[in-house]
Amino acid sequence: MAITVVGSVAFDTVETPAGRRERCLAGAATYFSLAASYFTQVRVIAVVGEDFGPSEQAVFDAQKIDTRGIERAPGKSFFWQGSYLDNLNEAKTLKTDLNVFAGFEPKIPDAYRDSEFLFLANIDPVLQRRVREATPNAKLVAGDTMNYWIKDHKPALLEVLKGLDILLINDTETRMLAGNGNLLLAARAVLQMGPRMLVVKHGEYGATLFHKSIPKGQNSESFRAPALPLEEVVDPTGAGDSFAGGFFGYLASQSELTPGAFRRAMFYGSVMGSFAVERFGTDRLQQLSRDEIDQRFALFRELTHLD
Amino acid sequence: MAITVVGSVAFDTVETPAGRRERCLAGAATYFSLAASYFTQVRVIAVVGEDFGPSEQAVFDAQKIDTRGIERAPGKSFFWQGSYLDNLNEAKTLKTDLNVFAGFEPKIPDAYRDSEFLFLANIDPVLQRRVREATPNAKLVAGDTMNYWIKDHKPALLEVLKGLDILLINDTETRMLAGNGNLLLAARAVLQMGPRMLVVKHGEYGATLFHKSIPKGQNSESFRAPALPLEEVVDPTGAGDSFAGGFFGYLASQSELTPGAFRRAMFYGSVMGSFAVERFGTDRLQQLSRDEIDQRFALFRELTHLD
Repeated sequence: MAITVVGSVAFDTVETPAGRRERCLAGAATYFSLAASYFTQVRVIAVVGEDFGPSEQAVFDAQKIDTRGIERAPGKSFFWQGSYLDNLNEAKTLKTDLNVFAGFEPKIPDAYRDSEFLFLANIDPVLQRRVREATPNAKLVAGDTMNYWIKDHKPALLEVLKGLDILLINDTETRMLAGNGNLLLAARAVLQMGPRMLVVKHGEYGATLFHKSIPKGQNSESFRAPALPLEEVVDPTGAGDSFAGGFFGYLASQSELTPGAFRRAMFYGSVMGSFAVERFGTDRLQQLSRDEIDQRFALFRELTHLD
Repeated sequence: MAITVVGSVAFDTVETPAGRRERCLAGAATYFSLAASYFTQVRVIAVVGEDFGPSEQAVFDAQKIDTRGIERAPGKSFFWQGSYLDNLNEAKTLKTDLNVFAGFEPKIPDAYRDSEFLFLANIDPVLQRRVREATPNAKLVAGDTMNYWIKDHKPALLEVLKGLDILLINDTETRMLAGNGNLLLAARAVLQMGPRMLVVKHGEYGATLFHKSIPKGQNSESFRAPALPLEEVVDPTGAGDSFAGGFFGYLASQSELTPGAFRRAMFYGSVMGSFAVERFGTDRLQQLSRDEIDQRFALFRELTHLD
């Protein structure tokens, strides 16, 4: 099944303990698309500026990602500059230039209308909602958000949550959204806001899937996937978006969405997140093979399974 | 196989968001012994004061824990007062009275000499080493320590590490001991200091076992056990010691220490840690059944296993 994703396609300048990279191709929709492209057909809705050239286009083409929904606008693409020198787990934002993204009006190509999977990457919830409403055929809708929208645009965000099947956010965002410091109670509160599943990403500790549908015991409504202890995290940017791409891409590749499929999807999410951080920007995600992915999946199983 | 454990038997006064408890029976050796007692015979070496009465003795007796190595000294038992009101993940120490513990000289009863498993709970590394040297028959030796000893008594601690098979510490202690912020690299550095296995406890995110013995791939030297998302953490005190008790107790109950036994031991460690925090002090650990323990073990498997 094809996935439509709406989000940012951007350029990032990042500095990490491993070095510095200027203006690498980035953005949530880029990380998501590349990660998901190893599992299924991906269609992107975004806006880029005149600095998005043939070499950037080639990155999407190589993975057969449909970019007819990437609008070209006069001006420059969204630009973000951040540093992880103080803390590899949290970026310090040095600069954010919205550029063409400031006037982003998502347009959904007709060719995308039959996408049964929709991913709303982290953008203004007003835009997320508009895309959601314009894709009534989507049978599984997932989305991301961030502290900024939770804090200052909560009413709009709550409207988005009502239309989501799955929300993917991190620990801090979950606690902030629910106003509850206990993760399990916070997760349950978020599940009351609309989504029937919540994936909480714990960074280097993996991620937990909470869902409402199996109320058979105290904690059996959850599933935890590990992260891989890594020798070197070159650039943590995009780990969450890559997790989402692996998770949702794997689901879209399945003929039936069984509980087991969701468990494996959590593992594939962690796998794609672990690859993403091994190189700057999307470098690692551009040059994977399904074999490498499945080998790492096996490593994750080995890391956590009793037998 | 019997386990000998040396460590503190103490009284704690704690305040947490769930309430306040005055002078409850506590101490690393107490938590460890109770947790391990569901799996095997446990023998304690400690010192207590005149405030350790029949009701405290009864707690050990109920679990058939051998207390012939608990010395009674004139004065008061070790006392600790802490608060988790600001942060459930880290205690703020309000008071520490060493009392009889200040002059602790561990004495090993002859009846303990055939213990093949030895656990050195978090005490002065000089004492840990003395007990280690006095139990040459131990075939598996594990131990714990804390930031205070790492920072200010490192040479003595390094001597202890040379005599350990397994060290159990948390993330921060691992990074501090190795002087390396990357957990995997820090773990490898600690494994160069003596122990052939290192269990790093991640609090609410579980624990990872690192070992030198299976160098077959990038990360296959590790195994990660989850923690349980809990609705309420009543009192986090002793979670790490209870983990150690479940982990080491299970190992001591096995006729052969296979790689699978270590994996299951990690799960049993997490299981006992999850019980410990459900009530104040050792309340929950005093009234478990092996059935309850195995049911939770199954829950942990369900929480993490693909099939």
